[in-house]
Amino acid sequence: MQIEITREYIDQVEEAIERDDKTFILETMEDMYPADITTVLYELDTNESKYVMDLLPAEVGAEILSDLDYDIRTDFLQYFTSEEIARYVNLMDSDDAVDILNEQSVQTREEVIALLDNDDKVKDILDLLRYEEDCAGGLMAKELIKVNLNWRVRQCIEEIRRQAEDVEKIYTVYVVDNHGKLVGRISVKTLLLAKDDKLVQDIYNPDVISIESFRDEGEVVAVMQRYDLDAIPVVNIQGRLLGRITIDDVIDVMQEQAELSRQLMTGISENVEEDDSVFRISRSRLPWLIIGMVGGLLAAQFMGFFEADIAMLPAVALFVPLITATGGNVGIQSSSIIIQTLTSNAVIFENFGQRMFKVLMVALLNAIIISVLVFSLSYLFRRDITLSMVVSVALFSVVMLASLMGTLTPMVLDKFGVNPAVAAGPFITTANDLLGLGIYFAVAHMLYNL
Amino acid sequence: MQIEITREYIDQVEEAIERDDKTFILETMEDMYPADITTVLYELDTNESKYVMDLLPAEVGAEILSDLDYDIRTDFLQYFTSEEIARYVNLMDSDDAVDILNEQSVQTREEVIALLDNDDKVKDILDLLRYEEDCAGGLMAKELIKVNLNWRVRQCIEEIRRQAEDVEKIYTVYVVDNHGKLVGRISVKTLLLAKDDKLVQDIYNPDVISIESFRDEGEVVAVMQRYDLDAIPVVNIQGRLLGRITIDDVIDVMQEQAELSRQLMTGISENVEEDDSVFRISRSRLPWLIIGMVGGLLAAQFMGFFEADIAMLPAVALFVPLITATGGNVGIQSSSIIIQTLTSNAVIFENFGQRMFKVLMVALLNAIIISVLVFSLSYLFRRDITLSMVVSVALFSVVMLASLMGTLTPMVLDKFGVNPAVAAGPFITTANDLLGLGIYFAVAHMLYNL
Repeated sequence: MQIEITREYIDQVEEAIERDDKTFILETMEDMYPADITTVLYELDTNESKYVMDLLPAEVGAEILSDLDYDIRTDFLQYFTSEEIARYVNLMDSDDAVDILNEQSVQTREEVIALLDNDDKVKDILDLLRYEEDCAGGLMAKELIKVNLNWRVRQCIEEIRRQAEDVEKIYTVYVVDNHGKLVGRISVKTLLLAKDDKLVQDIYNPDVISIESFRDEGEVVAVMQRYDLDAIPVVNIQGRLLGRITIDDVIDVMQEQAELSRQLMTGISENVEEDDSVFRISRSRLPWLIIGMVGGLLAAQFMGFFEADIAMLPAVALFVPLITATGGNVGIQSSSIIIQTLTSNAVIFENFGQRMFKVLMVALLNAIIISVLVFSLSYLFRRDITLSMVVSVALFSVVMLASLMGTLTPMVLDKFGVNPAVAAGPFITTANDLLGLGIYFAVAHMLYNL
Repeated sequence: MQIEITREYIDQVEEAIERDDKTFILETMEDMYPADITTVLYELDTNESKYVMDLLPAEVGAEILSDLDYDIRTDFLQYFTSEEIARYVNLMDSDDAVDILNEQSVQTREEVIALLDNDDKVKDILDLLRYEEDCAGGLMAKELIKVNLNWRVRQCIEEIRRQAEDVEKIYTVYVVDNHGKLVGRISVKTLLLAKDDKLVQDIYNPDVISIESFRDEGEVVAVMQRYDLDAIPVVNIQGRLLGRITIDDVIDVMQEQAELSRQLMTGISENVEEDDSVFRISRSRLPWLIIGMVGGLLAAQFMGFFEADIAMLPAVALFVPLITATGGNVGIQSSSIIIQTLTSNAVIFENFGQRMFKVLMVALLNAIIISVLVFSLSYLFRRDITLSMVVSVALFSVVMLASLMGTLTPMVLDKFGVNPAVAAGPFITTANDLLGLGIYFAVAHMLYNL
C-alpha cells in the first residue's frame, strides 16, 4: 500500500511518536522509498526524526543520511553516537561515507572509522579522505568493477558476482593492465553476449574517457556532459585507476553551481531556503542590503555637490530614477551574457578585442534606440528641449558605460578567481548607480551651462 | 593521435576546405569524438560546416546533429536535402529523430519520413510525433529492452542480442506481462549472474517507478532526481510500457530550465549566447530596457507632482537613488527565495499565512537594521534630523513593502501559469522604484508638513 505524504500523514506520524506507536510508523513506512521518508523527516523536529531513524532498518537510514542536505545532516548527526553513525557508514558507498565523515569533528571521525567492521571499506575511506572535496578525487567512489586485460569473460562474471553487493550500478566495467593502469572499458551488455572463454583483450573497447583525480569538479561536470557519460573513471597522474564518479553526483554538483550563481546574482550571500530560520534568511540578505545602502548614501553625498543646481532646476532630479534604473538593467544584462560564457566552459576563440567590439556594437544599437525613444517621450511629457537633450545624451552614455562595466567586471573577477556571478547582482547595480549619476549631472552641468 | 582543438587547428581546417583537401579533414577528425567535431563546426561558417558533414561517416553526422542547439540545427538543416536528412535520421534514436523532424516544415518532415528505410523506426517516429515536446511522451525514446514475465533468462539474453544495435545503453531491462503492461524490472547484472533457465518471474524486481506519458517535463526531472534514476519507463494511463527517458535528456531539460530562469531574472527575453549576432543579442535585451525606461519616465512624471517641494528642499532629491536601489535589492532577494521554492517542486506544508508571517518577520528585522543604520549615517553626513527621519521611515516602509511585493508577485504569476522567474528581473525593480518613490515622497510631505 502506497502512503501519500500529506499534512494529515505527518500529523499522524507525530501523534504516533507521541504515544510511542512503533507499529504505525514501521507499517506505513515499510513500502516507502527512502527519498519519501526523507521528506517526512524534514517536516518533523529533530527528536522526532531521530525516533523514526532508530526504528528504520540501517540500510534505509544509510540512504536517508546520504540524501540529506549537508547542513541539516551536520546538525542532525549531533544527536547520534559514534556507534550509531558507524552503523550507517558501514552500509554507505565510500563517497557518501567520506562526505559524512568530513562533516564531523576530528574526534567523531576517528571514533567512527575505528568502529567500522569492514577493513576494505576503512582502506577506501582513508584513501578518499586525502582529497579536497571539490576535485574529481573528492567526488569519486572506490566502488567499481575492474577486470584484467588477460582475463576471460568467465573470470569477469565471477568478479561481478563477488562485487555484486558493493556496486549497485555497474554502468561500465573498467579494463586495467597488470599495473592497474586503465586501458579500456567493456560493457555489461558485451559480457552478457560474449562466450565464457573469450579473452577480455579481444572484446574490450580501448576508447575510454577518464579524468585525473586533481581536476576541479567543474571540469568533471563539463567532460561528463560533453561526452554524455553516465560514469567517468578517475585516474592518477600515471593513469592508474583510482575510482569513478557517477552521473547522480555530477547532477548534484550542477545544481549546487546553478543555485549558487542564482543566489549570488540576487544578492543573497548564504545558501538559504524558504524553510530556514528567520535569522538565517535575514543574515544572508543583510550584507548586500548594507552595501547597497552605503552606495545609496554615497550617491546622496555625490548629488549633494549639485544641490544648488537641483534647487534651481528641480526638473533635473525627476529623471534620476530613469538613469539609475537603466544603468542597472543594462549592467545586469551585460554581465549575465558574459557570465554564461565564463561559467559554461565553452570554447570561444574570439579574442578580447573582437568580444569588446561586439559588446560595444550591441550597446551602441540599444543606446541609440533607447535615447531616441527617451528624447521623444520626455519631450512629449515636458516640452523642454534642453532637458530632453540632457536626459537622452546622459542615457546614451550610461547604456554604453554600463555595458562595458557589466562585461568587464565579471571578466576581471574571473581572472582573480572570484565567482563572476557576484558581479551580476547588487554590485553592478550599485556601481552603475554611481556611474550613471556622475554622467547625468556632468551632462546636465554642461548642457545647461550651470 | 589526439588533435587538440585550437584556433590554429580551426584555421587549418578552413584552409583545407578552401583547397578541397578532404584527406586532412578526414585524417584529423577520424579519432575525434563527435562532440569535439561539433565544437569545430561551431567555429566554421555554414557552408564550411556542410562541407565537413558531407565528408564524415553518417553515424558521426547523426550524432553531431543530435547534439546541436536546436536553433542552430534548424538553420543548418536548411542546407540539406530531404534525402540527406533521412540518411542521418535513419541512424538516430527515435527521440532525437523526432526532435529534428519537429523542427522541419511539414513538407520536409513528410518527405524525410517517406524516405526512411526502416519500418520499425517509421512506426516509432509516427508514434512519438503525437506527443507535445515538453511532456514525458515528448522526451521518451522507443528504444529499450523489454522482456516477458514468462520468459527464461536465455530468451532475455537473446532479446538483448537482437536489440543490441538499437539500444546503446540498457540501464535496466523492463519486465512486462502478456498485455504489455509494465510489471517490474531486472538489471543486466542480475541476468548476467542468473542461470540460463531461470524464469524472469522468479528473479525480477516488481518495484519499478514509472511516469505517465502526459506528465510535464518538470515532473520527469523531479521524479528522476528524487529517486536517483538513470532511466525511467514511460507508461500510458493503462500502465502499458511506451518508452523510456534517459538521464542525459533530463540533464538537458534541467539546464534549459536553469538557463531560462537565469535569463528571465536578468531581463533577457530570448535564449542568446555571446556568439549570437549583434542584432539578435540587441533584440533580446531591448524589451526589458524599454519597459524599464517607461518605468523611469513614469517615475519622472510622478516626481513631477513634487517639483515645487524639490525646489524648496533639494536635499530630499539626494536620497532618491538610495530609496529606489534598496527597494530593488530587497525585491529581488525576496523573489529569489520564493522562486526557489516554487520551481524546486519541494513539498512545503506551511500554509500561506505562516509563509507570509515569516516573510514579514525577515523583512521587519532587515528593515529595522537598515533604517537605524541609515538614520545614523545620514545624520552624520548632513546633520538634518528631519531629513534623516524622513529617509529612514521611508526606507523602513520600502523594505517591508518590497519584501511583500517580491514574495507575492512570483506566487501570483505562478498561479496564472507564468514562469515566476520573470518577476525577479527588471519587473520587480521597476515596480519597486515606483512604489518606493511614492512612499518616500508621501513620508517627506507628511514629516516636512509641505
